Amino acid sequence: MLRTGKDYLERIRDGRTVLIGSERVGDVTRHPAFAAAARMYAALYDLKADPAKRDLMSFEEEGERFSLYFLKPRTRDDLVRRTACHRAIADFSHGLLGRSPDHVASSFTGLAMKPDVFASGSTARNQKFSAHVTDYYKRFRHEDLFLAYAILPPQGARSPELYESKDRQPPTLRVTKEDDRGVTLNGMKMLATGAVFADEVIIGNILPLAPSQVKESVTCAVPIATPGLTLWARKPLSTAGRNRADHPLSSVFDETDSMIVFDDVKVPWERVFVHDDPELSRNIYIRTPAHFMSNHQSNVRFWAKLRLLIGLASKIAKSNGAHAIPAVRETLGRLAAMEACYAGMIEGQHQGMQSLGDFVHVNPRYMYAAVNYALENHAPICDMIRTLMGGGAFQMPADSSVLQDPELSGIFENYWSTLDQTAAERMRLFKLAWDLLGSEFAMRHDQYEKFYVGPSFVVRNYNFMNAPWGEFEGLVDGIVEEANAPRS
Amino acid sequence: MLRTGKDYLERIRDGRTVLIGSERVGDVTRHPAFAAAARMYAALYDLKADPAKRDLMSFEEEGERFSLYFLKPRTRDDLVRRTACHRAIADFSHGLLGRSPDHVASSFTGLAMKPDVFASGSTARNQKFSAHVTDYYKRFRHEDLFLAYAILPPQGARSPELYESKDRQPPTLRVTKEDDRGVTLNGMKMLATGAVFADEVIIGNILPLAPSQVKESVTCAVPIATPGLTLWARKPLSTAGRNRADHPLSSVFDETDSMIVFDDVKVPWERVFVHDDPELSRNIYIRTPAHFMSNHQSNVRFWAKLRLLIGLASKIAKSNGAHAIPAVRETLGRLAAMEACYAGMIEGQHQGMQSLGDFVHVNPRYMYAAVNYALENHAPICDMIRTLMGGGAFQMPADSSVLQDPELSGIFENYWSTLDQTAAERMRLFKLAWDLLGSEFAMRHDQYEKFYVGPSFVVRNYNFMNAPWGEFEGLVDGIVEEANAPRS
Amino acid sequence: MLRTGKDYLERIRDGRTVLIGSERVGDVTRHPAFAAAARMYAALYDLKADPAKRDLMSFEEEGERFSLYFLKPRTRDDLVRRTACHRAIADFSHGLLGRSPDHVASSFTGLAMKPDVFASGSTARNQKFSAHVTDYYKRFRHEDLFLAYAILPPQGARSPELYESKDRQPPTLRVTKEDDRGVTLNGMKMLATGAVFADEVIIGNILPLAPSQVKESVTCAVPIATPGLTLWARKPLSTAGRNRADHPLSSVFDETDSMIVFDDVKVPWERVFVHDDPELSRNIYIRTPAHFMSNHQSNVRFWAKLRLLIGLASKIAKSNGAHAIPAVRETLGRLAAMEACYAGMIEGQHQGMQSLGDFVHVNPRYMYAAVNYALENHAPICDMIRTLMGGGAFQMPADSSVLQDPELSGIFENYWSTLDQTAAERMRLFKLAWDLLGSEFAMRHDQYEKFYVGPSFVVRNYNFMNAPWGEFEGLVDGIVEEANAPRS
Amino acid sequence: MLRTGKDYLERIRDGRTVLIGSERVGDVTRHPAFAAAARMYAALYDLKADPAKRDLMSFEEEGERFSLYFLKPRTRDDLVRRTACHRAIADFSHGLLGRSPDHVASSFTGLAMKPDVFASGSTARNQKFSAHVTDYYKRFRHEDLFLAYAILPPQGARSPELYESKDRQPPTLRVTKEDDRGVTLNGMKMLATGAVFADEVIIGNILPLAPSQVKESVTCAVPIATPGLTLWARKPLSTAGRNRADHPLSSVFDETDSMIVFDDVKVPWERVFVHDDPELSRNIYIRTPAHFMSNHQSNVRFWAKLRLLIGLASKIAKSNGAHAIPAVRETLGRLAAMEACYAGMIEGQHQGMQSLGDFVHVNPRYMYAAVNYALENHAPICDMIRTLMGGGAFQMPADSSVLQDPELSGIFENYWSTLDQTAAERMRLFKLAWDLLGSEFAMRHDQYEKFYVGPSFVVRNYNFMNAPWGEFEGLVDGIVEEANAPRS
Repeated sequence: MLRTGKDYLERIRDGRTVLIGSERVGDVTRHPAFAAAARMYAALYDLKADPAKRDLMSFEEEGERFSLYFLKPRTRDDLVRRTACHRAIADFSHGLLGRSPDHVASSFTGLAMKPDVFASGSTARNQKFSAHVTDYYKRFRHEDLFLAYAILPPQGARSPELYESKDRQPPTLRVTKEDDRGVTLNGMKMLATGAVFADEVIIGNILPLAPSQVKESVTCAVPIATPGLTLWARKPLSTAGRNRADHPLSSVFDETDSMIVFDDVKVPWERVFVHDDPELSRNIYIRTPAHFMSNHQSNVRFWAKLRLLIGLASKIAKSNGAHAIPAVRETLGRLAAMEACYAGMIEGQHQGMQSLGDFVHVNPRYMYAAVNYALENHAPICDMIRTLMGGGAFQMPADSSVLQDPELSGIFENYWSTLDQTAAERMRLFKLAWDLLGSEFAMRHDQYEKFYVGPSFVVRNYNFMNAPWGEFEGLVDGIVEEANAPRS
Repeated sequence: MLRTGKDYLERIRDGRTVLIGSERVGDVTRHPAFAAAARMYAALYDLKADPAKRDLMSFEEEGERFSLYFLKPRTRDDLVRRTACHRAIADFSHGLLGRSPDHVASSFTGLAMKPDVFASGSTARNQKFSAHVTDYYKRFRHEDLFLAYAILPPQGARSPELYESKDRQPPTLRVTKEDDRGVTLNGMKMLATGAVFADEVIIGNILPLAPSQVKESVTCAVPIATPGLTLWARKPLSTAGRNRADHPLSSVFDETDSMIVFDDVKVPWERVFVHDDPELSRNIYIRTPAHFMSNHQSNVRFWAKLRLLIGLASKIAKSNGAHAIPAVRETLGRLAAMEACYAGMIEGQHQGMQSLGDFVHVNPRYMYAAVNYALENHAPICDMIRTLMGGGAFQMPADSSVLQDPELSGIFENYWSTLDQTAAERMRLFKLAWDLLGSEFAMRHDQYEKFYVGPSFVVRNYNFMNAPWGEFEGLVDGIVEEANAPRS
Repeated sequence: MLRTGKDYLERIRDGRTVLIGSERVGDVTRHPAFAAAARMYAALYDLKADPAKRDLMSFEEEGERFSLYFLKPRTRDDLVRRTACHRAIADFSHGLLGRSPDHVASSFTGLAMKPDVFASGSTARNQKFSAHVTDYYKRFRHEDLFLAYAILPPQGARSPELYESKDRQPPTLRVTKEDDRGVTLNGMKMLATGAVFADEVIIGNILPLAPSQVKESVTCAVPIATPGLTLWARKPLSTAGRNRADHPLSSVFDETDSMIVFDDVKVPWERVFVHDDPELSRNIYIRTPAHFMSNHQSNVRFWAKLRLLIGLASKIAKSNGAHAIPAVRETLGRLAAMEACYAGMIEGQHQGMQSLGDFVHVNPRYMYAAVNYALENHAPICDMIRTLMGGGAFQMPADSSVLQDPELSGIFENYWSTLDQTAAERMRLFKLAWDLLGSEFAMRHDQYEKFYVGPSFVVRNYNFMNAPWGEFEGLVDGIVEEANAPRS
Repeated sequence: MLRTGKDYLERIRDGRTVLIGSERVGDVTRHPAFAAAARMYAALYDLKADPAKRDLMSFEEEGERFSLYFLKPRTRDDLVRRTACHRAIADFSHGLLGRSPDHVASSFTGLAMKPDVFASGSTARNQKFSAHVTDYYKRFRHEDLFLAYAILPPQGARSPELYESKDRQPPTLRVTKEDDRGVTLNGMKMLATGAVFADEVIIGNILPLAPSQVKESVTCAVPIATPGLTLWARKPLSTAGRNRADHPLSSVFDETDSMIVFDDVKVPWERVFVHDDPELSRNIYIRTPAHFMSNHQSNVRFWAKLRLLIGLASKIAKSNGAHAIPAVRETLGRLAAMEACYAGMIEGQHQGMQSLGDFVHVNPRYMYAAVNYALENHAPICDMIRTLMGGGAFQMPADSSVLQDPELSGIFENYWSTLDQTAAERMRLFKLAWDLLGSEFAMRHDQYEKFYVGPSFVVRNYNFMNAPWGEFEGLVDGIVEEANAPRS
């Protein structure tokens, strides 16, 4: 079933508990900080359900139509289709939604491609976890849900032994009780991007746990509106006062990030996928293609943003009359090379795909290389474009109200227009540029691109672990051997 | 005379015309976008007038006490005193006021150290310009004025010939009429930082003019409240809703930038310093120590901000429990090296001072090298600290209202505190960090540091022009000669 | 016909004129500066002719077997086969031969895929140039030739008008006479890499010519041994004293670079492809897939070297006992990411291939992006590995003769061995490392990687020209339009 | 006493044991690998003894004249004099001698400024070490000695516990016996730069030792010609075949690096300064100004090289006709800024000097910042200049013998000259450029600049340790406090 925007909006009007500072938000679809973004997610669902996009955005199985990002890929063509769907979603949001609905869905589809991994425990209960994963996957795609995840412990709480040494309970989420019906959770997880707008949230652990962290090692799915669950949203970037003309992106695409606090939250067993298994709780992402699939979506998303950034760079250079300057042209050529590099790595992931049982997945090395590339280059790219921008954004009036003022609009047009552009066009361009590159929304993205997969050492470790070191080192050995062989 | 904050505030309540978008601001000292900053400037005047700071902040000449930044330096010790005064002002604002009152004052003091430069023209009127400069300098220091300057043509209007080829008047400011009393000005200048809060503004040309730009080549001083003069402020970053706890810097230190539009503004001759002399209009900054003195102030200002940034980096690393990690420690060591590098260049400017007639000035090569260093390193330094910050800022609640909420404050303290810091302390630290590194205020600073002396090619040209190329190239010649000398 | 190494060596023993300083080299296959490299090229021909490599290294057409790099690709599979052949050749030389025989052959195959381009001139003679190209292509592949090219004017001579203003003939090569049999050439071209070892050389122009440079605009093929043609080799890096144990790479893989001077060299018309057509002489590389095909080979070659570099980095880290240090591991992960990024761009070139008439070619944007990536990253990668190397190379004895010295070899083993490696193993590793990263051979490669396609602004211009700017800019326009649309 | 070059050469003809591979060098002043460099050191002594340089290069104390680098500074002027002397020596060698005679002499002078540090041990013997230091300092300056040092354990041997766990003696140097006359040493130290040409060598420990490394913790001075001491030189870069015209720098300035192996070397007590005190052996460099003084010399030396590099960059740009290109000019301006930045940090070290008892020393923070700056920027600067060089070096004939060839010299002049430079001039420039930037000598310098004070994390740790963190962090605390103060 492909749900519509209307269905989506109705379902998240479910009494969830969301805080903005000390303000309790009643209905996220109506609160000025969230309403525009909620409508935007709804529009995305409508786009996906649009019959004209049928082949691009969905597939059929057992007579039912599902969002394409639930497709378990069996061929290179399946991978190409998945990428095209991710791209359509990413283009819709210009790559500004890190955790659009296809992200966690891709991750979970990856988990469901190797459900036997979940049965690795020894208890009778563990034996059922494979079935829980398979069943949840079916419900997830059938109900066409939007899921977030919260899979990190809170910063500062990452050394539980320190807390214990002071007789304090570490704040990180854990199972505090269990019975026949399920588990009870208490504690905090970070940083549930998009959770304010999602149906449910996956709780889990992307960082390795210590063997002693048995009770932290729970992976499960929880509806946002579950009693006892509270989202503590960070400062909203799309406030009431923001109109779209002056803030064309931040007024719409703030997905928000939230700390998520559990106070005696009950989760039934059928929603539990890992329990009391610290090693497995993290390794489900390594031993299934889940991490490859969710991060391939991230690659495609970043690509959409990169194209926007580069288009913006060119428009700015033209607006400033700098487009013909050799140094500016070289910068634009370099930006174009960066976009092509990134695009090449994405297409290369199809060409270099790998098999896993009956399924295939994208080339993991090229995918992690693309993650690393985004991590290393997003901030420098933005900085290059800010440099092209010069004082452009600060030359513009405080807001677009001048365009409506009969007296000022004429003066503005007279002084701010150039030979090629009206003053209004220039203002709109620079308002967009500032929203993308200079606003708090821009800087939240700057942090996001630095950390969405983890800090740089984690990203490089993924690259390290997946490299064929024996092959590389063998090249050295071969030369040494040949150079020191006895001559005949 | 050292004026007080009260005097300052009263004087700028003078009926000036300031626009925020289409809103006409009545009194800048009371408007929510500007009031806090105006009070901050007043506090700076009070600090300067404080008898306890007498020796640090002022000097005496002919029985009158003046702000120290008006001192024409004759010895190394004078230079050291000037630097100490700049530093006190910069520390007051943590380096966040690019154009604090000592900036243009230093520039004008530099002009007044070589007033004969202004007499270079051939008309009878030109002969009087030296006296205009000397007289204005005396009035400037006697009234202890705060001046801004606007010495760039508007972006996009830098090729006047293009406008003319289309029969359009280029928008840049020029003299449109002159008579016995003075000149009449029409047109636009950018980007008058601080002008909203200043007493007067210097109009001039820091970029070379074409020989044909005779009417643009005017340098003069104009009171902000002059009829026909309008400041078009860019978007204010310190709005009504901003409280100081959540925005400790941007709520106070937004100096604002304005486009300045002249509509038949009349300027009497005694306020005109250059007229109808395109070459001179720019070269007053080269042929006097004005540029060295204003930019030395910029060096000292940047240094204050650098110390704050580095202190913040260390605090963040501690708050995140990352201070002992070798890679983090190396980052902190590198930041410390950068601060010391910058400090060394500033102290070196005294040791390597140069003479100019009876006066001395700081070493210009080390000063321009420091400008270039700031230009190249400010953004990377901020990026390094943002990386140390991780998701810290987004883990914090939307605002500090949670601290006042009886129910939430307990939960917050329980979950967000670490073993070393209360939750409130952590929140305050990250609110400050975000205000300095992630807010729009931060990003306005990012642009400011990129361009306050000009784009990188201009800054590098100052460095190129001041280098002793003959000495450097001679080293190569010497080696070639010696290596190819006939052997005895 | 696939020629053997023996055939190859015999054919280049042809009386060619090669200078090393003022020394006239008689037989390049026997001179100590060139002999080892000549044998290495011969071994490459033997490898290619090896029946076991038949499918990898050759293809059949009209009953004859040709080197695979002459294949005109019609399908993605053809592209994949070409890449595999390039890779086998690149692996043979560890990517250290920039202009291995498949380079110019690929370029010429590209020219021959669009021979009509050459008929664009208006004279009867021009009409035959298409046939010249097709015929030469057939001879080229039939005789399995090794060609070099020299397609740049000498540095310093790039402004012919300056020479003319001083009544001096610019030194660059041009046609000085023509008759029914052909043209006569005089002048100099740079920088004929590999020409000392090649059968023939292509003369041409990769940089745009001025319309007045009619006589310089000649493209033709000339045998190296043609009377009047002299190769002025740069300093050889593989001298007599170099043994392979101490210099495992430079003793074998110095392809040399030469200035090529023509003194009344006669070239018959059937070897001329462009004549008196400044625009076309350069554009043959743009209007055919020649540039895409030769530079795809360069991509594959660089990739081979990158794998060697990364293998070396890992071996060095282990040898120095630094492999487990987190910062070193992060460096290795980053290097692995860079290799994967490059590999992804190469595989992406197949996935994103484009059509050209009946033929296909690799995706040009990803190819040029890979060129830019190599240009930007080769030197930093080498620098990273040199940093890993520490003082390793300088701790080693001057040469491997210590291993043969009965007294010293024991001391050496006792003091220089580590727990994991014998002293001899460590010495061999560091001798290789130094040869690849610290020798003059290494630094010639450093320059080569900076300039083999042209300086950075040229490479970025290729990237600029091939980018879909309209598509990128359209993204900006779309957002501006939507944000400013009247709300219903 | 200021010794002459002749005295110097005679004294080092002392029967020392030096190995080049398996070759035993008889007399270093006559061996082709070392003779030219030995003459160059002799010329440096003659320069220093030149009466015309008396005030620049020496000072008088108790009626005797000493090299100025033995002066214990008591005033800023003394510091300025020391810097001037270092600069004269550095200019003599263009900064290409890392360990010129003033280096270790400055270090030891620093030790001798706080001799009480050495008396910290508790045994009667330790009580005499202060006197040993003072006495040796007097002999050192009286005999005007040239000392090297070897203060690092061999790479790979830095974890002695690993060796011990395998019942192997770690190869690092240690005391193996002691009696009334002195100690007996066995083992290896690295990397005694300049030792081949020095009179004596200091053995010590610049890296912290483990408390268990009691026997390694010896600091003493040993004449190079002591029986049992062998220098294992790394590959010489100034071989017999190298003439000065083609290799103007490497033919003269290869100071060499050596591993130094001790086989039952006896050292009398009066030459021992630290014994059986692991903590002290390293801390003598921290608790005295020794490290500040030796590294200030390194700063001044690097500065000389930087000026040469920048002069070369300008000459190359001119020779290639690229000097007027805006991007090249910006590069030159940036290089000039870097030189000025470095110069400013050096002058700032005087202005910011600090006291230590009766003595003063340069500002340590600016000194370490300069070390870090050199470490970070040397390789990028060289890379920038290599990029300016383009293919220049490879266009030149193999060697300068063409200039003597009657036939070739005319052709060479005709084709290789430009309008501004003869071919011979161009060749000489590019031979120098290649020797400085592309030769093995260049790359040995590349490694040297990366490691002469230690790897980057060590250099940053010196910067970390010397930074006033309390002051920096206090700035943050002040803002937080003020922003959260109750409003009146």
